Amino acid sequence: MKLNIALLAGDGIGPEVIDQAVKVCDAIAGKYNHEINWTPALTGAIAIDTVGEPYPDETHEICANSDAVLFGAIGHPKFDNDPSAKVRPEQGLLKMRQKLGLFANVRPTFTFPSLIDKSPLKRERIEGTDLIILRELTGGVYFGERGRKDNGDTAFDTMTYQRFEIQRLAKKGFEMAMKRSKKLCCVDKANVLEASRLWRETVQTMEKDYPEVEVSYEFVDAVAMRLVQWPKDYDVIITANLFGDILTDEASVISGSMGLMPSSSVGSKVSLYEPIHGSYPQAAGKDIANPLATVLSAAMLFEDFDLTQEAQAIRDVVNKSLAKGIVTEDLSDGGKAYKTSEVGNWLAANI
Amino acid sequence: MKLNIALLAGDGIGPEVIDQAVKVCDAIAGKYNHEINWTPALTGAIAIDTVGEPYPDETHEICANSDAVLFGAIGHPKFDNDPSAKVRPEQGLLKMRQKLGLFANVRPTFTFPSLIDKSPLKRERIEGTDLIILRELTGGVYFGERGRKDNGDTAFDTMTYQRFEIQRLAKKGFEMAMKRSKKLCCVDKANVLEASRLWRETVQTMEKDYPEVEVSYEFVDAVAMRLVQWPKDYDVIITANLFGDILTDEASVISGSMGLMPSSSVGSKVSLYEPIHGSYPQAAGKDIANPLATVLSAAMLFEDFDLTQEAQAIRDVVNKSLAKGIVTEDLSDGGKAYKTSEVGNWLAANI
Ligand SMILES: CC(C)[C@H](C(=O)O)[C@@H](O)C(=O)O
Ligand SMILES: CC(C)[C@H](C(=O)O)[C@@H](O)C(=O)O
Repeated sequence: MKLNIALLAGDGIGPEVIDQAVKVCDAIAGKYNHEINWTPALTGAIAIDTVGEPYPDETHEICANSDAVLFGAIGHPKFDNDPSAKVRPEQGLLKMRQKLGLFANVRPTFTFPSLIDKSPLKRERIEGTDLIILRELTGGVYFGERGRKDNGDTAFDTMTYQRFEIQRLAKKGFEMAMKRSKKLCCVDKANVLEASRLWRETVQTMEKDYPEVEVSYEFVDAVAMRLVQWPKDYDVIITANLFGDILTDEASVISGSMGLMPSSSVGSKVSLYEPIHGSYPQAAGKDIANPLATVLSAAMLFEDFDLTQEAQAIRDVVNKSLAKGIVTEDLSDGGKAYKTSEVGNWLAANI
Repeated sequence: MKLNIALLAGDGIGPEVIDQAVKVCDAIAGKYNHEINWTPALTGAIAIDTVGEPYPDETHEICANSDAVLFGAIGHPKFDNDPSAKVRPEQGLLKMRQKLGLFANVRPTFTFPSLIDKSPLKRERIEGTDLIILRELTGGVYFGERGRKDNGDTAFDTMTYQRFEIQRLAKKGFEMAMKRSKKLCCVDKANVLEASRLWRETVQTMEKDYPEVEVSYEFVDAVAMRLVQWPKDYDVIITANLFGDILTDEASVISGSMGLMPSSSVGSKVSLYEPIHGSYPQAAGKDIANPLATVLSAAMLFEDFDLTQEAQAIRDVVNKSLAKGIVTEDLSDGGKAYKTSEVGNWLAANI
């Protein structure tokens, strides 16, 4: 297969972790006879500094014309204490999601046997956790009208959902559930919000098309509680943009190893793959960041092109590196800490 | 002191747990020479069944003319699977908050030494946790304009905040922080929402009036993560209605004993005290529900009237009952399980 992949390294540790994922993908391509063309493009703080825009049009063209996008991380501390700064790296992220139509953020949560005791949660609560949160990513209060009134003393944001946006996401949720444990949970706040009532109504109407899927409806506050109490109760969760933002981050605590958690953001034409961790500016340039989340995001990429063997080969080599202790300092537990680049080299060599 | 307290038992286990709190308060009144006049009033599903309204005007009159309100729980399963039902118990709750002007929900989170191992979180992460979430309760997306467009295919809700609403809540937050560890964390989503930017701006302006308080600003997604990772990092958290709904429920998991967690909802004229647990319909009428959260909510009531000794006497007798194992079945761990009413009698007798 021939794959054109846009490479958005971004800020902080982004470039370093992306480099390792590229090595691993190239090794996969070599072994399984694929051809990968990488096209780097600017995004984030580095794009603001270079061309004044966090998601430049040129970057968008490159992404839109690729088969997939591999993304590192964005964000720089110089923007952090100034939420009203005119141009911010995060705006690039939102613009990218919208312009590429990345409507579904897929966040798997699972545990690694060898790392389970790093979790703040007790082993018996989390062992065997295997859930996916599907977060709507191009609608809701993130993209509604907002502004000020009364000389700036009143601020408002509008949470809007259209039926087709919910259907599109829910369809993906039902399909995923069918391939897994056939359990789907729709998370909303239908006891308060009209948008949530539209969610519930829409999903209820779709139930008949997936008679094998057991559907439940829960309020977001209850799920914020139950997710850390009984994560094993969940299989596929679908939810709105804002609730998903909160719940996916909460869920990332379960595994105890955020540096390993991958994600994808699915569009109708092109999808994007990125680690869930941020740009971790303190570690930038030190060759110490854990590249595994980005490497595992690349596995999700292959999976989406039905290259199941290739995806499995990546997951296997990651597990092997964990078992052998070929890990960065965040996981080395007093043992030898390998450099980011050393871990990448080892993974590529062992594919 | 003479206190007129409105008594809203509500649904499910509400009446049973309220009964025990009344016994305890009466014992306190006897011991410390206070006079408490209890005025029962209808709310919740029982009010819908009786007078067709979850928060009848008569109930409002009683509450508005009392010194405080003691509240049980509301909700009934017959309303649960019909989120679009015209009249629902939860509407009573929202109406009550709005009409009584209960602008600040106060939710302490702390651990009980004897119960700490019931938490899903590891002991070392939570031991010593002592934080308060102050949730704005009468504004935000709960009370903004909402509706449908496009023949029902589009739904919208408006999240609105006015500067004075934020100031009022933040003032309480700063004052609480001054009495505690002098740390205040404002939780928002200022990288996306205009309302959050108004929050941040408003709180920043108030910082100079409380030079001793160390103020931090964090995004709600990060807090959803850090709250279960490092709960001891927090002291007083202030946040908007919807974020508070999610975070307070999430925080309730920390202690591992939701049946013990009290709360208050503070208004400018009258305040309300209630357990954080729900109406637990499966247990209703069985005399098995844990009354301690309601009893501890009564302690918060006395505290707010500067009856510190009285409040402490309640907390002491609760701790004594826990130490002696005079507890309901949820805490009995194979030992003798006392009835709800037996626990109440024991507490009252030991004040
Ligand atoms: C940076 C921010 C705008 C973004 C979001 O809220 O979507 C981030 O938290 C995320 O989840 O990717
Ligand atoms: C019942 C519901 C409307 C309510 C809320 O969301 O405020 C509840 O979850 C709470 O936190 O008291």
